[in-house]
Amino acid sequence: MTSGNATLVTGGARSGKSRFAEQLCVRSGLDRIYLATGAPFDDEMKARIDAHQAQRGVGWTTIEEGLDLAGAVMRAAGPDCVVLVDCLTLWLNNLMMAECDLAAETARLTDAIRGLNGPCVLVSNEVGLGIVPENRLARTFRDAQGRLNQDIASVCAQVVFVAAGQPLLMKSRQEPEITL
Amino acid sequence: MTSGNATLVTGGARSGKSRFAEQLCVRSGLDRIYLATGAPFDDEMKARIDAHQAQRGVGWTTIEEGLDLAGAVMRAAGPDCVVLVDCLTLWLNNLMMAECDLAAETARLTDAIRGLNGPCVLVSNEVGLGIVPENRLARTFRDAQGRLNQDIASVCAQVVFVAAGQPLLMKSRQEPEITL
Amino acid sequence: MTSGNATLVTGGARSGKSRFAEQLCVRSGLDRIYLATGAPFDDEMKARIDAHQAQRGVGWTTIEEGLDLAGAVMRAAGPDCVVLVDCLTLWLNNLMMAECDLAAETARLTDAIRGLNGPCVLVSNEVGLGIVPENRLARTFRDAQGRLNQDIASVCAQVVFVAAGQPLLMKSRQEPEITL
Repeated sequence: MTSGNATLVTGGARSGKSRFAEQLCVRSGLDRIYLATGAPFDDEMKARIDAHQAQRGVGWTTIEEGLDLAGAVMRAAGPDCVVLVDCLTLWLNNLMMAECDLAAETARLTDAIRGLNGPCVLVSNEVGLGIVPENRLARTFRDAQGRLNQDIASVCAQVVFVAAGQPLLMKSRQEPEITL
Repeated sequence: MTSGNATLVTGGARSGKSRFAEQLCVRSGLDRIYLATGAPFDDEMKARIDAHQAQRGVGWTTIEEGLDLAGAVMRAAGPDCVVLVDCLTLWLNNLMMAECDLAAETARLTDAIRGLNGPCVLVSNEVGLGIVPENRLARTFRDAQGRLNQDIASVCAQVVFVAAGQPLLMKSRQEPEITL
Repeated sequence: MTSGNATLVTGGARSGKSRFAEQLCVRSGLDRIYLATGAPFDDEMKARIDAHQAQRGVGWTTIEEGLDLAGAVMRAAGPDCVVLVDCLTLWLNNLMMAECDLAAETARLTDAIRGLNGPCVLVSNEVGLGIVPENRLARTFRDAQGRLNQDIASVCAQVVFVAAGQPLLMKSRQEPEITL
């Protein structure tokens, strides 16, 4: 069973996927909650987060939750607001660093998505389209990210792939336009 | 000339491409032949193959052929069964390790595909969408895989790109639904 | 504002994007100008350029410009010819090696594209769909390439993603077929 309320936005690094997801939320006209999955752990990442925040502009309520994403989504979602989760890749990284049970945490999140009583947009990265990484941890992460994207996509009503800032609807509610 | 009988399913690692290809075969209602292109060469790969086999379930006749894929496809194919080749990436790796003539082997396979007298689904990886690899062998493999995918796609009636488990029909028989 | 005259063709390494872009130009029936963004800097690259040239065949006027791409596009474009820029990735590499101001050069190019008085096809690479590179310069390049692709796509009337030689229209003039 999928949730008519959930949209997965996926794509490569710097593909414009976050910007597209933000625009989806803005166009909905609903109150906007930004659910950030991570605090910056180095200067490079801090600069990246600052740039995203500047691009996003005002009008968002920000919540930070690095591990219990299912709980945070359930608490934040509702019929009068849209929740933007940015991003699943950082969340996966946090789970792996904390040695959490990935299958169990993914199941909790897919359950939360199925039970949504309001719209939610989840952003994730595609990381499996390059050459096989030489580093074993990178291969493990790549596999886990691929599995997570499949599992989340399976419970979302819409899946959008973004490249060069352009959205491509890969799974839809059979409606021609991409909306929340 | 393309073969109306052949479908290429491509995508990144852990994109769900094998699962989608298997579902295509199951939905056809035909007898199913699984043409595996490689034996496991280490524990990591053995685990991966075991997981694929568990996912695939029963109801398949398995054939293993690491090098002479054209011959194996010609012998296996027929009007009452569907052949699933999983995957071209491992086959390419075998050819390169055995120092085979890639152009000649690719030509043999495209000839076999053009001559198919029954449906065949071929699974391959996209590996060229990351940063240029520092390792020269990786660059050579990336180029060879890209060329192989182009050559196989050119003789297939359908090409499907899979991301996050979602299929996208990139080349079609002009029919709206993806079928064999 | 987009230019009705510009088409961005993007995809991975060896995806067939250059060949598709060339075919677009040939099918237009216009005089063809090939705007090469780089001279070969090693044997591997020379072999790659030679292969592209052999594939392209005769009937092209070739111009080489590694840095001032905006100027070269403006001088070359016109209503009776089509300009093929191959490729933006090599141009970006040149700009970074020459320590140019990437934002300023990108703005000059998007201005040139908006002002086109004849058709132009620009080829670029997707490099952000693999695992995060360990090398900081590679991460910087990946980010710059992603941003450049977004910026160029935003001013083009058409954006085509190519995989396995198959084109996928991601942004269109609402016309069903991909043409210049």
